[in-house]
Formats: sequence, structure tokens, C-alpha cells
Amino acid sequence: MTQVKVIIAGPRGRMGKEAVQLVQSTENYELVAAIDYKHDGKELHDIEGFETIHIPVYGEIEKCLAEIKADVLIDLTTPEMGMHHTKTAMLHGVRPVVGTTGFTQENLLELERLCQEKEIGCIIAPNFAIGAVLMMKFAQLAGKYFNDVEIIELHHDQKLDAPSGTAVKTAQMIAEVREQKKQGHPNEKETIAGARGADFDGMHIHSVRLPGLIAHQQVMFGSEGQTLTIRHDSYNRASFMSGVKLAVDTVMNIDSFVYGLENIID
Amino acid sequence: MTQVKVIIAGPRGRMGKEAVQLVQSTENYELVAAIDYKHDGKELHDIEGFETIHIPVYGEIEKCLAEIKADVLIDLTTPEMGMHHTKTAMLHGVRPVVGTTGFTQENLLELERLCQEKEIGCIIAPNFAIGAVLMMKFAQLAGKYFNDVEIIELHHDQKLDAPSGTAVKTAQMIAEVREQKKQGHPNEKETIAGARGADFDGMHIHSVRLPGLIAHQQVMFGSEGQTLTIRHDSYNRASFMSGVKLAVDTVMNIDSFVYGLENIID
Amino acid sequence: MTQVKVIIAGPRGRMGKEAVQLVQSTENYELVAAIDYKHDGKELHDIEGFETIHIPVYGEIEKCLAEIKADVLIDLTTPEMGMHHTKTAMLHGVRPVVGTTGFTQENLLELERLCQEKEIGCIIAPNFAIGAVLMMKFAQLAGKYFNDVEIIELHHDQKLDAPSGTAVKTAQMIAEVREQKKQGHPNEKETIAGARGADFDGMHIHSVRLPGLIAHQQVMFGSEGQTLTIRHDSYNRASFMSGVKLAVDTVMNIDSFVYGLENIID
Amino acid sequence: MTQVKVIIAGPRGRMGKEAVQLVQSTENYELVAAIDYKHDGKELHDIEGFETIHIPVYGEIEKCLAEIKADVLIDLTTPEMGMHHTKTAMLHGVRPVVGTTGFTQENLLELERLCQEKEIGCIIAPNFAIGAVLMMKFAQLAGKYFNDVEIIELHHDQKLDAPSGTAVKTAQMIAEVREQKKQGHPNEKETIAGARGADFDGMHIHSVRLPGLIAHQQVMFGSEGQTLTIRHDSYNRASFMSGVKLAVDTVMNIDSFVYGLENIID
Repeated sequence: MTQVKVIIAGPRGRMGKEAVQLVQSTENYELVAAIDYKHDGKELHDIEGFETIHIPVYGEIEKCLAEIKADVLIDLTTPEMGMHHTKTAMLHGVRPVVGTTGFTQENLLELERLCQEKEIGCIIAPNFAIGAVLMMKFAQLAGKYFNDVEIIELHHDQKLDAPSGTAVKTAQMIAEVREQKKQGHPNEKETIAGARGADFDGMHIHSVRLPGLIAHQQVMFGSEGQTLTIRHDSYNRASFMSGVKLAVDTVMNIDSFVYGLENIID
Repeated sequence: MTQVKVIIAGPRGRMGKEAVQLVQSTENYELVAAIDYKHDGKELHDIEGFETIHIPVYGEIEKCLAEIKADVLIDLTTPEMGMHHTKTAMLHGVRPVVGTTGFTQENLLELERLCQEKEIGCIIAPNFAIGAVLMMKFAQLAGKYFNDVEIIELHHDQKLDAPSGTAVKTAQMIAEVREQKKQGHPNEKETIAGARGADFDGMHIHSVRLPGLIAHQQVMFGSEGQTLTIRHDSYNRASFMSGVKLAVDTVMNIDSFVYGLENIID
Repeated sequence: MTQVKVIIAGPRGRMGKEAVQLVQSTENYELVAAIDYKHDGKELHDIEGFETIHIPVYGEIEKCLAEIKADVLIDLTTPEMGMHHTKTAMLHGVRPVVGTTGFTQENLLELERLCQEKEIGCIIAPNFAIGAVLMMKFAQLAGKYFNDVEIIELHHDQKLDAPSGTAVKTAQMIAEVREQKKQGHPNEKETIAGARGADFDGMHIHSVRLPGLIAHQQVMFGSEGQTLTIRHDSYNRASFMSGVKLAVDTVMNIDSFVYGLENIID
Repeated sequence: MTQVKVIIAGPRGRMGKEAVQLVQSTENYELVAAIDYKHDGKELHDIEGFETIHIPVYGEIEKCLAEIKADVLIDLTTPEMGMHHTKTAMLHGVRPVVGTTGFTQENLLELERLCQEKEIGCIIAPNFAIGAVLMMKFAQLAGKYFNDVEIIELHHDQKLDAPSGTAVKTAQMIAEVREQKKQGHPNEKETIAGARGADFDGMHIHSVRLPGLIAHQQVMFGSEGQTLTIRHDSYNRASFMSGVKLAVDTVMNIDSFVYGLENIID
């Protein structure tokens, strides 16, 4: 296997910490530098939690790329910084894998153009949990064959919004392919309001909130005599790392722009 | 084991058919007569579906009890007939096991008085599915230790009312023991109305309707770091028969009035 | 929508009965004849259970196709009859949809050649339950991204073999794409033999048998911090009919040979 | 509510840390001292992780109880220390709540005698997760009414033993009340060894191991037409704290010896 030299931007965040650990524990990856505007000029081992890792830390990406040879930039910062980092990396021939959310449609188009110009791979992924991405993809596939679908999403009781963003995105993806239908009996009646959940294009979404729960979603399809259920349980942020690894491995072998992990899963 | 002589009232109904089969296939039960106002004077084998069973059918319970010696009456008729059958049976020293729903509070008090007077067992059970009865009982027990509970009930999409009667009854039973609480985050917000389900005393009930489903209910409790789930799946009416058997076995050994299978389950 | 004229071979079997009902209740399908060697020359309404359906019944497919113009043959008979029916139908320009299992590899090759020669669609499907087919397809897709998988299949306690055929087929499909791995801790130890289930290429299969259950399968994938679960519940044979409908609609629009519903699901 | 003065022995362990947090965040509890042989004479705020808590730490329980007035000792140390702490506490009129496992039968008898002599409450609980305790209790109750039961326990793939201790304990509890039965079809056949799981007194136990999973158990009961499922999911050690709280509240109101949380749950 080829050795892949990796720079991580944003090593101190929750995702960043996991990413450092991923790169360190993957045989053919090599962590060559970190970008952290708060610790310019230090070494990573000077920062709490990274005591054993001896690589340079740069405050600015330009200086980093001038001094360090790398293959991939994993960016886990903010949309503003992420945009600057991603463009600069491509201009230096370094392939970006970006977990930052919040890019505008214009940002994405600009990145795509740069990507085509430089003929270099670039992957932007708002969600790195492969299991969640597969759940949505499978739900969309099943939606072609089942008109009746109900989504149950279950989260801890500190969550403010219902339904969850993932549930709404899943419903949107299904709606793109599903033959439109108002589900349930035409004369069904709620004796207590809300029992039948949220209506999204005739589908129903139910939001369960309980202390103890973390982040779970179940998509159920039914037709005469059968049900098909697809469920994802997310227990902690380590779940994102298999997606980051998939993205790094993929970005090394493509020369195009990809938005969303679902598009590199076939 | 003592032999138990059984009369079944209402053998042609869906529950009745299952009850006939139960009695026929239980070693120490003996089916001695049936009560069916449409087939007075026939034998059961004259009626479609019972071709191999040679016992007399009576249109009226009085004549039946005058001619036939029995231990137990299983009544699966209407509230009006059921009331008459139950009283008459007790007056003849025959112990009733009654699956009829719809008795009024007055009816129940009258039957209880008669039961005490005759010192004979009598069991009235609106729901004979032991699994469902245990689910509700366990949910109530757990409700003492968990304030946070959500009920998800799942039925075929021909069901008209939501939430189901069983879900509401379960919530009522939990509410009797649970420390009152408004669940979810105080500032939680439904971005699509109904997402958080029906509110019952601060608990939430979600009604899922899909073709293919039959009758299912899941009661979820949560507290810091854990969830406890109790689920009952009912696939067909045969599920009622283990409860009928339990009631017949129990009614032979008690001399009191029991309303609800949950009270003979300890 | 074009009207599709359908012949059903084997109308009295369990699948056959469901198929008759499917064709009758689908707007653009028309049932034009049945093939049943026991009732040659009768009308379908002479046969118990079909009292209202006035179409001719033939003992032999040749006579049927000589007299009746049809688009599709749905064959739900035995392998021997099914082979003869399928070939004859294609020779007459009628497209076969075949649910018969048990064709040999030679049979399949012969049918494929005939199909190419006649340039006509032909679909052979050992399993018509779309939900089950999707479950297997999704399991295979997920197997590319998750090395760790356990299959739990749950059936009624009258089932003789464990694991089920579907579980083994699912495991085979996953094994084709999954990076081989011996799952579980290298030093794991069964304190009671069998606890870790059946080993299939390093994956584990668990067979649950309980009265009440029908036919269910759950495929679970796990990686750091997450699990992905795909589950199919089959409650009765009506579950096959959506697959038959999909096959009929598809066979009208293809001119090639298809083995397995998974290949017309994209 | 009465104020309850609490001493915690073993504050630095994983359970200990949670217990400190529990006591600090419960309105009518007051943390008055800690016992930690490594930090005799310090204050708790000298120890990492407890920087804000100003209470004395003692190396020995005798000195602690001589100087500090307390109602309850929560002991989360080793069996040897725990035994000594529990006896000494009772001799000083302080009620023990002990989460230490590994006491011998003799230890327990000695503690019970001392408890009777001093007429003071004492609770020893090998498992403080109320949800797990209720799951086992409900499983035992259901075992009276269902002969057919299968246990599926699911854990992370670093677990060495299969089945889990909780699964075996659950099976033992069910076996005490269940009518003995060899489950499954009498002629059932494993085509791959182990498919039907571990046999425990005719019941079957299945051990699922996947990365991502934490600690989960599902007990399934089946009878004609229905299944009843009881499931506990444990996500982290915080799940033990509701049990510790229940034990502390209960021990203040009893004057007897209790072994196992299941005996204070009614």
C-alpha cells in the first residue's frame, strides 16, 4: 500500500481528536503536520492530549504547505477557515477531505470548478458516519418499491428540535423516488393530537426523546404481509472515523469533486 | 389432573372457534356442550367447521344447564347475552370465564355480589392475550422507577383510531404510579407538528400504521445511560388462547370474582 | 397503462391463489386463462374458492396458447411442469414470470438461450418477497464497508433446519464482497457450547425458534461507535405478491433473461 | 425531605466518580467525607477531577467515623476492604450501600447477622442498573406463563466470555419458575454447528459480538400467535446511579439486610 501523508486542520476539536487517532493508528497513513491557529510554531506534543506526537503545528496553511510535503488535508474547522484551507490545498496539489458543514451553494460550485481545473480529488462530507449514510441510501432504494414508510428517530431528551435533521433528510431522499401517497386509513382519527406523528409528503415521522438514548433512527417500510426495517444506532463520535478513512482512501484515487459520502458508496 | 367439563357459548365467532380447538386439544378438558341461539337442538358436527365434534348445541343456557353437568362456562358472546349466561351459570354452580367486553360498572358489581353469595370463582377478562397483559403490568412496575417513558404502538393501516386502546390503557396504568413529569427538553420545538406524538400526562405516544403490520406495542423507559423496553407482538387470535386456559385453570381453584387477567398473574 | 393479459399456471396452490387475487385486483391486468391439469375444460368458477371468476381452465399449455392470446404467463407449479410451461410460453411469444424453485443449472442455461433467441423477456425468481430480496441486497452493499456482521434469523418452532436458507444465502452474498475476518475477540471462549452461533466464513449466524414467530431476519453490522441493522419481517404469503407484480411489469419491458428478483431491483 | 449525610469509599474508581457526582447533584444528599487509602489526610479537592469539592479524605474508616457524623456509607472498593468497611459502618450506626461484588456466602451471612443485631438497614447490590434488574425480574415473572424463551445478549467484540454473566443469571432465574421444556422442534437439525445457540435447561442463549455495541440483552418469550420481548440497553456507567439512589433512599427506611436490588423493587 502507498504511504499517505496527512495534514489535519482542527486537531483539538472532538472530530479532530478522533482524526488524529485514526491517522496514527492506520498503517499506511502518516501524520505530517497539524494546522491550529492558536498554536503556530509549536509541536503537537506541546498540546494537551497529544503528548506523544512529534509533528509541527502551523497557524497558517500557506506556510504549512510551503514547508511540508503532503498528500491529503483532513479539514475539521469552521466554514470560513475550511473554505480557505480547501482552496489553498488544491492549489498546492494536496487533496482535501472536508468534514466542515455550512458551505454555501456558491462555495461548493467554486470548489468544484477549482477541482476540475486542477484535476485533483476533493471530498466534502457533511456526515462521515458510514452507517447513517448507508441507512439513508437504502431507505431511498426501498422507497422505490414501498409506498408506505414511517420514520422513527430516537434521541436523548436534551435535543431541542423534532424531527431530527437526519430524519427530514431521509424523508426528502425517499420523497424523490416514492410514488406520492397519503398514508394510513383515509378516515383515521387522532383521539389525542399528534399520535400519528409529523406528516412529510404523506409519510409519518415520529420523534422519541428519552434520557439514556444517544442517536438512533429506524426507517420502516410495509406492504401486504411484510415489513422492511433499516436502523442506524450511533453511540459516539468514533462512528465518524470509518467514513473519514473511506474518504481519504477514495480521494487518493479520484480526480473529481464529490459532495456527500453517499456518492462514493456504490 | 382433574377433568374439567366445559361449555362454550358463542362457538362460531373468531374467538369461539379458537376456544373450541383449545378445549379439544387440552388433555384434561372435555367439551360437553355449546350454546348457540341459531342452532338450538343440533349437534356441533352439523355446523360448518366442526364436522368431527359430537356434542349437543343449545339455544338457551337454562335448558343446557338442566341437561348437562359442567364445571366451567367459557362465554364469548355479546354483553347482553354474556350477562345473562354468566349469572345463570353461577346460579347453577358453573364457573364462568368471560371474554365479552362491554359490561357496565353496574353489571360487574352485580356479578361480583352473586359470586360472593355463591362462593364460586368467576373471571371476566377484556383481554386474554397473556403477553399483552404482562406488557402492561411490567410497564406499570417499571413506571415506579423511570419517570421517562414513550409508547410506540404499531398497527396495520386499516386501523381507524390513534392511539390504540391498549396504548392509552398502558399510559393510564403507568400514570397511576409514575411521578408526574413533562418529558423532553423544556424548550423542545416541533419543526413539523406532531413529531413528538400524543401527550398523555407528560408521556408521549406514537402511532405507526403500515400495511403488513398486525398489532404491536413497545413501551420504552429511559434514564441516564440506559433504556428498558417491553414489547408485545400479536400475530393472530390464537394468542388469546393461553389466557383462556390460564383463566379456566384458575377459576377452578378460586371462590372469588376477578376482573382482568392481570389480577390472576402474580 | 397498457392492458396486460395474464395466464396463471397452478391457481390452486397457496401462491397461485394469491396470484389470482393480485391479477384480479390490478387495474391494468386481465386474467385470461388458467392452467391446471386436474381441471381441463372447466371454467375457473367451477373450482372452490374462485366462484366469481369466469375464465377457461386448460390442462395443457399448448392448447391454452393456441386458443388464448396472452402477454404473460405466471407459473407457480413444479420444476418439471414449470420448465415445460416456460419454454412453450416463450415459443409462443408469451413472457414467463416463474416462481418455481428447483430448476437445475442446465435448465436455466437452456431457458436463457431460448430467451436470447426469441428476444423476449423472461424472469425466474426463487423468492418474490421484495422486502427479503432488498434485505439481502442491502446486506451485501453494507458488507463492503463493515467487516463485522452477525445474522439473527427468527422462525416458528416447527422449522426443522437451522440456520435458515435465507440466512445462509445472505451470508454467502456478504462473503462475496466482505474482507475476510474471524470475528469476535481472538481469545473469546464459550462457557456453554454454541453461544456464539454458527460460524460462516468468520461471520456468526444465530437461529431463534419460538412458537408465535413467523419468518424474520435481522442482519447487524458494527464498527467503532455505530451499528447498522437491516430487518425483514414476513407475516404471510401475501408478501410475495408485490414481487410478482414488479416482475410482471418488468418482464413486459425487457427482452432478456433474469434470474433472481435482486437483478431487476436497482 | 430529610437530609442524608453520605460517605463514599472508593471515590476515584469509575463507579466512585459517578457516585460523587450523584451525591453532589441530589438535593437532600450531603457528601461529608471520602475514604481513600492513597490520600489520607487530604481534602477531596486535592485529587484530580474533584477540584471543587471541599470535604476531608480519610485513609481508614475508623478515624473517619470517629470524626464525622454520617447516615450512609456508599462502598465501591474491593471485597476485602468492602467487608471491613461494611462491618465497621454498622458498628457505628452508619447504614451501608455496597456495590462491591465478590463477597463470599460466609461474608454475606456474617453481615446479615450483624445487621439483625444492630437493627440497621444494609444493602449489598452486585448490579445497580435498575433497568437490568427489572429486565431479569420481568423475565422471571413471564417465565411462569411462557415455556418458550430465547435470550439474545449483545456486547462489544472485546468481551471474552459467552454467554454473558447476566444472560446466565437471567436463565437461572427463569429456570426456577418455568415448566421444564426442551425447546424447538424435536427433530430440528443444525446444518452449521452452533446455530441454535447455547442450551441452558432447554432454553437457548445467543451471544452477539460486534464493535460499536456496548451491553444489551433481549429476552424473548413466544406462544401461539404472540411474542413478548424484554430488552435492556446499557450505554454507560451512569446507568448504575439511579440504582444507587434507590438503595440510599431505601436503606434509610429499613432495618434489615438486603442482597440484590431486585429485593427492594416490588
